Amino acid sequence: MLADELKQLDKKQTKALAEAIREELVEKVKETGGHLASNLGAVELTVALYKVFDFPVDKLIFDVGHQSYVQKLLTGRDLGSLRQKGGTSGFPDPEESAHDAFIAGHSGTSVAAGIGLCNARDLRGENYKVVSVIGDASLGNGLALEAVFSSEEKPKNFLVILNDNGMSINKNHSALYRSISKMTAKKRYRSFNSFLSRTFKETSALGRRLRRMKYSIKGWLNQNYFFERCGFKYVGPVNGHDLHELVAVLSDIKKIEEPVLLHVLTQKGKGYEPAEQEPSRFHGVARNFGESENSFSRALGKLLCQRAQDDPSLVAVTAAMTDGVGLTEFAERFPARLFDAGICEEYAVTMAAGMAKGGLRPVVCIYSTFLQRAYDQIVHDVCLQNLPVVFCVDRAGLVGADGKTHQGLLELSALRAIPNLRVFAPKDCAELSDIFDYVRSLGCPAAIRYPNGYAPNLGVRRRISDISLWETLSEGDGTVVLASGARAAVRALEAKKLCGREDVRIVNCRSVKPLDERMLEEIAGRKIITFEEGYAAGGFGSAVAEYYAGRAVPVRLKIMGAENVPVAHASAEEQAASLRLTAKDLALKIAAFSEQN
Amino acid sequence: MLADELKQLDKKQTKALAEAIREELVEKVKETGGHLASNLGAVELTVALYKVFDFPVDKLIFDVGHQSYVQKLLTGRDLGSLRQKGGTSGFPDPEESAHDAFIAGHSGTSVAAGIGLCNARDLRGENYKVVSVIGDASLGNGLALEAVFSSEEKPKNFLVILNDNGMSINKNHSALYRSISKMTAKKRYRSFNSFLSRTFKETSALGRRLRRMKYSIKGWLNQNYFFERCGFKYVGPVNGHDLHELVAVLSDIKKIEEPVLLHVLTQKGKGYEPAEQEPSRFHGVARNFGESENSFSRALGKLLCQRAQDDPSLVAVTAAMTDGVGLTEFAERFPARLFDAGICEEYAVTMAAGMAKGGLRPVVCIYSTFLQRAYDQIVHDVCLQNLPVVFCVDRAGLVGADGKTHQGLLELSALRAIPNLRVFAPKDCAELSDIFDYVRSLGCPAAIRYPNGYAPNLGVRRRISDISLWETLSEGDGTVVLASGARAAVRALEAKKLCGREDVRIVNCRSVKPLDERMLEEIAGRKIITFEEGYAAGGFGSAVAEYYAGRAVPVRLKIMGAENVPVAHASAEEQAASLRLTAKDLALKIAAFSEQN
Repeated sequence: MLADELKQLDKKQTKALAEAIREELVEKVKETGGHLASNLGAVELTVALYKVFDFPVDKLIFDVGHQSYVQKLLTGRDLGSLRQKGGTSGFPDPEESAHDAFIAGHSGTSVAAGIGLCNARDLRGENYKVVSVIGDASLGNGLALEAVFSSEEKPKNFLVILNDNGMSINKNHSALYRSISKMTAKKRYRSFNSFLSRTFKETSALGRRLRRMKYSIKGWLNQNYFFERCGFKYVGPVNGHDLHELVAVLSDIKKIEEPVLLHVLTQKGKGYEPAEQEPSRFHGVARNFGESENSFSRALGKLLCQRAQDDPSLVAVTAAMTDGVGLTEFAERFPARLFDAGICEEYAVTMAAGMAKGGLRPVVCIYSTFLQRAYDQIVHDVCLQNLPVVFCVDRAGLVGADGKTHQGLLELSALRAIPNLRVFAPKDCAELSDIFDYVRSLGCPAAIRYPNGYAPNLGVRRRISDISLWETLSEGDGTVVLASGARAAVRALEAKKLCGREDVRIVNCRSVKPLDERMLEEIAGRKIITFEEGYAAGGFGSAVAEYYAGRAVPVRLKIMGAENVPVAHASAEEQAASLRLTAKDLALKIAAFSEQN
Repeated sequence: MLADELKQLDKKQTKALAEAIREELVEKVKETGGHLASNLGAVELTVALYKVFDFPVDKLIFDVGHQSYVQKLLTGRDLGSLRQKGGTSGFPDPEESAHDAFIAGHSGTSVAAGIGLCNARDLRGENYKVVSVIGDASLGNGLALEAVFSSEEKPKNFLVILNDNGMSINKNHSALYRSISKMTAKKRYRSFNSFLSRTFKETSALGRRLRRMKYSIKGWLNQNYFFERCGFKYVGPVNGHDLHELVAVLSDIKKIEEPVLLHVLTQKGKGYEPAEQEPSRFHGVARNFGESENSFSRALGKLLCQRAQDDPSLVAVTAAMTDGVGLTEFAERFPARLFDAGICEEYAVTMAAGMAKGGLRPVVCIYSTFLQRAYDQIVHDVCLQNLPVVFCVDRAGLVGADGKTHQGLLELSALRAIPNLRVFAPKDCAELSDIFDYVRSLGCPAAIRYPNGYAPNLGVRRRISDISLWETLSEGDGTVVLASGARAAVRALEAKKLCGREDVRIVNCRSVKPLDERMLEEIAGRKIITFEEGYAAGGFGSAVAEYYAGRAVPVRLKIMGAENVPVAHASAEEQAASLRLTAKDLALKIAAFSEQN
């Protein structure tokens, strides 16, 4: 593979390889979709790392993993199949390659995981280097900060690379980042540096010594106590697109045992003009760079703008996903009422709880997979105090190409066990609006979950004063399908057609907690199938089973939900098929169950 | 109440009040049990806060809340009923008093909650001060760090008090703490300070100006960029037991709008000799300072010491609860293999995942209520990678006096939805050992949950090779009780006696995930009652209901678990009674169900 050949290449060839990789990235990601800008920024850094270190004997851990495509190319993985079923994962995955030393997808894990690996290595008397690469935005995450501050001595042979592109997904206002960015602005160093470059060839022994001196002077000039006090020797900042400089600095670091924090300055989208201009837009790109479809996220954004006009108490909170959750327009129109916490989900939720306690009505908009990072804050700070915080849980259910680290299959089980929290799953965007208004009128904590991608419009819309009551979408006096959530409702209606049974009743179970007990009593004598896109373990069907437990005459109930396994990247439809949660699967189940005695 | 009178008292009377409060604290907490040392350290600080600020119009937020008893005394709450049923909560609780501006119990919330309150106040055009009091150990928690670093500008009229007693529950090795503690050691300031004190009376106008100057010089000398860069004016360090100095400094701070970080040095256990000597022992004290009973925690500690002798890959990880989870002896005997992460549950779990990836076999010992703070790390870093990390979940189920913020009622539902994770609940300490050895032999992620307090010895112990199979504790051909966990098993055996039905079969369902399907099939024709100490929503009974759903002949199943409500402080037995989960409740249920047609 390329990684092996790389070590043999001379300077010129290495540089040519980096350029070829950059071209390949743009071309492939255009086709497959994925994270483009962050990978373009990490081309030289990754090539330099592979040139210097001996992975996978040495261990390379990427934080989040948005910047791991270059590594994938170097280690023989095909970007042509990126994020597609059976193809290359969009994130590091140890099951895919021994070069992926630790899983990634969520933010802030790499320093903690790196320290753990070092601890294991040292206790076992092994000998390898551990390298964690973390972006400036991820460094502000609580888990990353806990790890950085965990002790004043860090393990030996541990290198943390701060890949500093001066921005997170959205602009980063954190005090941490300001502290770091100040280090780079010292003019004194700049002139000293250029003097050095002018005077000495860096290939000479004297040149190498001077380079070392240069970075140590740089650290001293910058008075970088921040990382030094945390047990790292601070080196940098280094130009992250100067391949030879990176190779030289990394070679020096490889020789020493001391734990090092290497500060690398990179440009997101480097080398691809459109991405350089609009790195935020090219952070994650859909296939063919297409526009995002009509979605719940967009509907939510519009809804919040409308409601915010009339209700000054409405504030929106998110965690570095303002655009993703549909808040772009809200951010423009109500900048003082949009709180973007950066990649700090815990802070976002507890701060929202504080705002609710102070008389506001916060709406927290976070993807399902990231909301689970603030589980305790939902429990302890919001729900124990019964505060009127509404959680808009985007990307709930199968997420498609992002794969197993990003699935929204857990939150229904985890959330419905929390006291005081109500949980809803609208069938379409109109109902999202109804549910939103309803929970705002109740003034209690509530979660509203909905999937990504195309949002249906089911047309049916019965004005029922109590939205926690369920809605029959299609009448019938036979088997009852209790469908929870938009995708389930759409598939259930389709399944009724597919199986050709007019007697099937399709119910939209928009309220998962509480259940519609009146409806459950009414249908107790019938055959019932619950249908949801989430783990069956503890999910909606499980709630229905609990309700019916203990009846004198037991009900005939089947639960259709996801099997309790990780679900890898593929399209959301393919994922549903692999879990047997398609309309066809439901149709077969309806037919078989209906004919049972 | 005292808080109102306090403002009228002169210096001498105020000091006398503080002393009276200190005496009251020692006397009452001796009787009731609770957190003694941290409250003794916060006497003068709390009195000074109430002397200066106008709570509850101004808002006072305690982090964790171990230091809130003095506030309770000042605001008319009876410490004689502390932590008892219907009595005063051991933690701040807005339901108990308007003086408790935000709930507390878990660590690191106060700065985020304070910022939220300030945001709400400012958007609503209100006018009050917000004061968050956070200990040095809590400041290292990820949520607290996220909040501190959240922006380089902090809200106005926001005071964060760093209550620095130089230690957490166990000794704090964090780099953060070292950074802060260095500030206090500057000799230059000390001499300057004493010069000032000698020269000027602080009551004079000049004296007041000089005091302000003194702290600003102090901050400058200490080069405290840490908090300044995060948007706080740094003031301190101040002697936290000098009541008049505290009143003076707080009065100054009250006059300015600028956000302030006030660094207060306190001594844990101050004024009570035994607690001063052994603050760790007096952190939380049981009623009458009694020794802790024979418990699962102790059994686990012994077990880990035994296994660690033979298996060098065994490492233990905890999060500032080394003693609480029973690891005191382990820490002494295997110091290099005990990793105490401080109050950083997320770091503890992800670091453990890193160690597992590096070839070790970590055992993570954390209370149930705190483990939920690392939910995402369990999911993403441990279970998605299917790593051999064993979670020993202490204080699972009802926790008694600590009350609603500390209940272990959620984790069964939350954990059983996680792919690749096995979940166990031993009936007694011998079985804890069997289960531990079993999951270690499997090499997969697993959670073992057990309650606090007295651990039973049920005697019965059948050596079954596969511990995921259940164990019949008492035979009978009638109704089957599926009991999960030690307390449930003990109560089930007692219930059989109480209801006088010889035909009841009692089963120890030590494996919650996977279920013993063979047993479930065997008993499918019988009446079944599931019995657990955890929320019924999504819990063990729910898993059984899911399993049986969809059978041609439905089963007769009742689920007995906790109603989905917060459960306040009382004894664990009283809490069980309030939730109708006692042996007697079960006996009644068995009798009624057995007689049903």
